[in-house]
Amino acid sequence: MSEKLIGAAIFGQSGGPTAVINASAYGVIRAALDAEEITKVYGAEHGIKGVLDDRLFVMDEEDPEELRLLLHTPSSALGSCRYKMADPEVDDTDYKRILEIFKKYNVRYFFYNGGNDSMDTCNKISRFMESADYECRVMGVPKTIDNDLYGTDHCPGFASAAKYIATSCMEINKDARVYDNGMITIVEIMGRHAGWLAGSAALATEFGSGPDLIYLPEVDFDMDKFLSDVEKIYKKNGKVLVAVSEGIHYADGSFVSEAKTSATDGFGHAQLGGLASMLAEIVKERTGAKVRGIELSLLQRCGAHLASETDIEEACASGMEAVRQAVSGVTGKMVAFQRETIDGDYHCKLVLIPLTDVANYEKKVPLEWINDEHNGLKHEFIDYVLPLIQGEPKLPLEHSLPRYARLKKVLAK
Amino acid sequence: MSEKLIGAAIFGQSGGPTAVINASAYGVIRAALDAEEITKVYGAEHGIKGVLDDRLFVMDEEDPEELRLLLHTPSSALGSCRYKMADPEVDDTDYKRILEIFKKYNVRYFFYNGGNDSMDTCNKISRFMESADYECRVMGVPKTIDNDLYGTDHCPGFASAAKYIATSCMEINKDARVYDNGMITIVEIMGRHAGWLAGSAALATEFGSGPDLIYLPEVDFDMDKFLSDVEKIYKKNGKVLVAVSEGIHYADGSFVSEAKTSATDGFGHAQLGGLASMLAEIVKERTGAKVRGIELSLLQRCGAHLASETDIEEACASGMEAVRQAVSGVTGKMVAFQRETIDGDYHCKLVLIPLTDVANYEKKVPLEWINDEHNGLKHEFIDYVLPLIQGEPKLPLEHSLPRYARLKKVLAK
Repeated sequence: MSEKLIGAAIFGQSGGPTAVINASAYGVIRAALDAEEITKVYGAEHGIKGVLDDRLFVMDEEDPEELRLLLHTPSSALGSCRYKMADPEVDDTDYKRILEIFKKYNVRYFFYNGGNDSMDTCNKISRFMESADYECRVMGVPKTIDNDLYGTDHCPGFASAAKYIATSCMEINKDARVYDNGMITIVEIMGRHAGWLAGSAALATEFGSGPDLIYLPEVDFDMDKFLSDVEKIYKKNGKVLVAVSEGIHYADGSFVSEAKTSATDGFGHAQLGGLASMLAEIVKERTGAKVRGIELSLLQRCGAHLASETDIEEACASGMEAVRQAVSGVTGKMVAFQRETIDGDYHCKLVLIPLTDVANYEKKVPLEWINDEHNGLKHEFIDYVLPLIQGEPKLPLEHSLPRYARLKKVLAK
Repeated sequence: MSEKLIGAAIFGQSGGPTAVINASAYGVIRAALDAEEITKVYGAEHGIKGVLDDRLFVMDEEDPEELRLLLHTPSSALGSCRYKMADPEVDDTDYKRILEIFKKYNVRYFFYNGGNDSMDTCNKISRFMESADYECRVMGVPKTIDNDLYGTDHCPGFASAAKYIATSCMEINKDARVYDNGMITIVEIMGRHAGWLAGSAALATEFGSGPDLIYLPEVDFDMDKFLSDVEKIYKKNGKVLVAVSEGIHYADGSFVSEAKTSATDGFGHAQLGGLASMLAEIVKERTGAKVRGIELSLLQRCGAHLASETDIEEACASGMEAVRQAVSGVTGKMVAFQRETIDGDYHCKLVLIPLTDVANYEKKVPLEWINDEHNGLKHEFIDYVLPLIQGEPKLPLEHSLPRYARLKKVLAK
C-alpha cells in the first residue's frame, strides 16, 4: 500500500501486568528484529515514561533464546507505568519530548501494549506526530486481564487469568468441603467494573467443583438478597462457596468494599482488598457458620504457570501482526480479535480497529449471560470463555521452578 | 514373620488436606484391593468419625480409573476430621464403638493417614485392640504440609505446598516490581509452629525472583528489627518482597497475628489470617511506601496443579508400603522416609518407626539453617527442600481444567 519506511522501532508496556503481556512483547520484538525495514528495536523502560526519560533498552543486544523465554515470563519484563498523558491541545510538553526522542533515534515505528488508557496514549501520540509532520507508524497491541476493551472479542491476558481463577476455585472448593461441619468460603476476584474474571469462576462449577454463587459488578448488589442466597444453600448443604467480583456495588453505585473502609478505622482496606474478609464477617454474623474469606490477589494476573496456550499464542500473534501491518503501511490502529466459530470449532482472526474507537469504552458481561437471580452465569458465558483457556504451555523449568527470561537491558545512548 | 491375617481393611484421612493426601489414599486402597489377605476395603467418611458413625464407603465398588485419578485430586476425597480421641484409660467409649464396628465388618487392618494427632489416634487404637485381644494391624501413613512430623526426613504434602509457595513467590515478585514507584509486598505463609513452608519461599530467591526477607517461627520476632530490615532494602532498591510465617511470635511467645486481633474490634482476623494486612499497615506507616499484604491462604495446601511428582510418588508409595507391611505382620508403626544421598543424587527409602515415637513432638527447621540476621535461610535449607519438589505430574485434564476423581461412595451396610 505505501512506500517502505526505514527506521527504528520502540515498544512499550503499560498498565497492570498479566501472565502473557511478555508474550505480546516477544511477538513485537521478534517480528521487529526480523523486519528489514526496522533498523533497530528499542524497549522502553516503564512504558512511555522510558521514552520521556530516554531510557531505552536495545533489544538487538539480547540473546534470542532469552527473548523467547518472554513467552512464559509473567508481568512486564520492561517495566510498566500508569502515566496519563495530557491532551496535546492543552499541554504538548510530553509530546514534544517524545518527538525529540523519536528524532534522536530515528524512530519510525511505535508499538504500545496496554488497555484502554494505553490505546488513548497511542492515539494522542499518533495524532501529534501527524500534526508535527513526522512520519511514524503507531500501533496498539491489546492487553488486559479485565477483558473490557471495546472492539475485540477478548483481550490477551484475560484467558490465562480466567484459567487461574477457575482452577484455583476448583481446588478451593475441594479443600473447603473436607470437614463434616458447616463451612462458607468467599473468594474475592479482580475486576473493578467488568465481571469477566469473577464470571470465569463459573467454569469451575461447570466442571464439577466450583462456586455455588457468583456476583458480578454488571448488576447492583443487594446485601439482603446475598445473605438469603448464602443462607439457603448453607441450610441445604452445610457448605457454600461464593465468588465475588471486587467491583460489586450497591444500587447507588457505591462499592461494597468501600463501605468497609468507612465502617472501620481507616485501616486502608480498599487498597489491600478486604472485601472477602468484610463479607465473611457479615455472613458469619448472620449464619453463625465458620466463614473464610480468600482474596486471589495479584496471583490471578501473574499466574504464568497456569497460562492458557491459546492466550500465549494469540498474545504473541497480535504483537507480530502489529509489526507486519505497520511495516506494510498501516498506522493508528489496534490489533483486535474476531471470533470465528467454524463447524463448532473456535478460531481467532486478527483484525484492525481504529485507535479512536477503542479508547474510553468498557466492554462488560452482557446482562443476558447473567442468570435471573443475579447470582450465577448462563451457558452462553461458559461457551464464550471455554475455548480461550485451552491448551497447556510447555513451561521452561529449571529445578522444577519457572525459568524466566533474563534480559541484559543494555541502555541506548 | 507371622501367619496370614484374613479380613477387611479400613482406611481413613485425618487433619488438614494437602495436594497429595489422596495419592496416599490411592496407595493404600490400590494395594489393599490387590492384597489377597484383605477381603474388602472400606474408606471411612471423615476419618475416625466415619468409623464411629458406621459411615464406610466400599472401595471395591469404585471404578479403578476413577481411583487412579486420586493421584491428582487435592484435598481429602473421603472427607477429613479433627477429632481428638480420649485416652482409653480415661474414657473408652469411642474405642468400644470402634471395636464393635471392626467386629461388624471383620476389620483386621486399619490404615490412618494424618499428622501428629492422627498418629496418636492410631497408637491409642492399636493399644486398645491389643488389650481387648482383638487382632488388628494398625498402620500410620504420614501427611502434613507443615513437615513437622518426628522420625521422618519429610512428610508427604509438604513438598507440593513448598513448590506452590516458591512458584507463587516468583510470580508475585515479578508482578510487584513492574512500576517505577516504590512497593513493599508482604506474603503470609502457613505454618503455625514450624517454618518449613515459609522457608520454602527461599527457593524463589535462590532461582532469581523471590523474597528479600523471610521470617520463621523458629526464632523470636522483633518488630523493630523487622522494620529496619525492610526499610534498609526499601531505601536501597525501592522494592521489597517479604515472606512471613503465620506463626511468627514475639519473645514472650505471643503470636504477632494475635496482637492484631486484640488491637482491633474483635473482627476475628485470627481465623481469617490478616497477619499480612496487619504488617502491611505497620510498614506503610513507617516507610510511607505503597505496601501490599498477600495471604497465600489455603491455595498453598491444595494446589494440586503445581504438585511435585516426587511428592505424589512418595505419598503413594508410603500408602502401599503400609499395606505391604501390615499384610506381612507389622503393626503399630508409621511409614517414614529416610533420605539417602548417593553420588549427590537424592533417594528416599521407606522405613518404619513406632507410632509411640511419632506423636506429640514437632520437628522444626534447624536453627543452624537460618541466617544470623534471622531474616533468611542458608544453603542447607535449599539443599534439603530442592530435591523434594522435583518433577511435574502429568495432570489429567478435561477442557484444560483439572479432572478430579469422582467416587461413587457406596455405603457399607
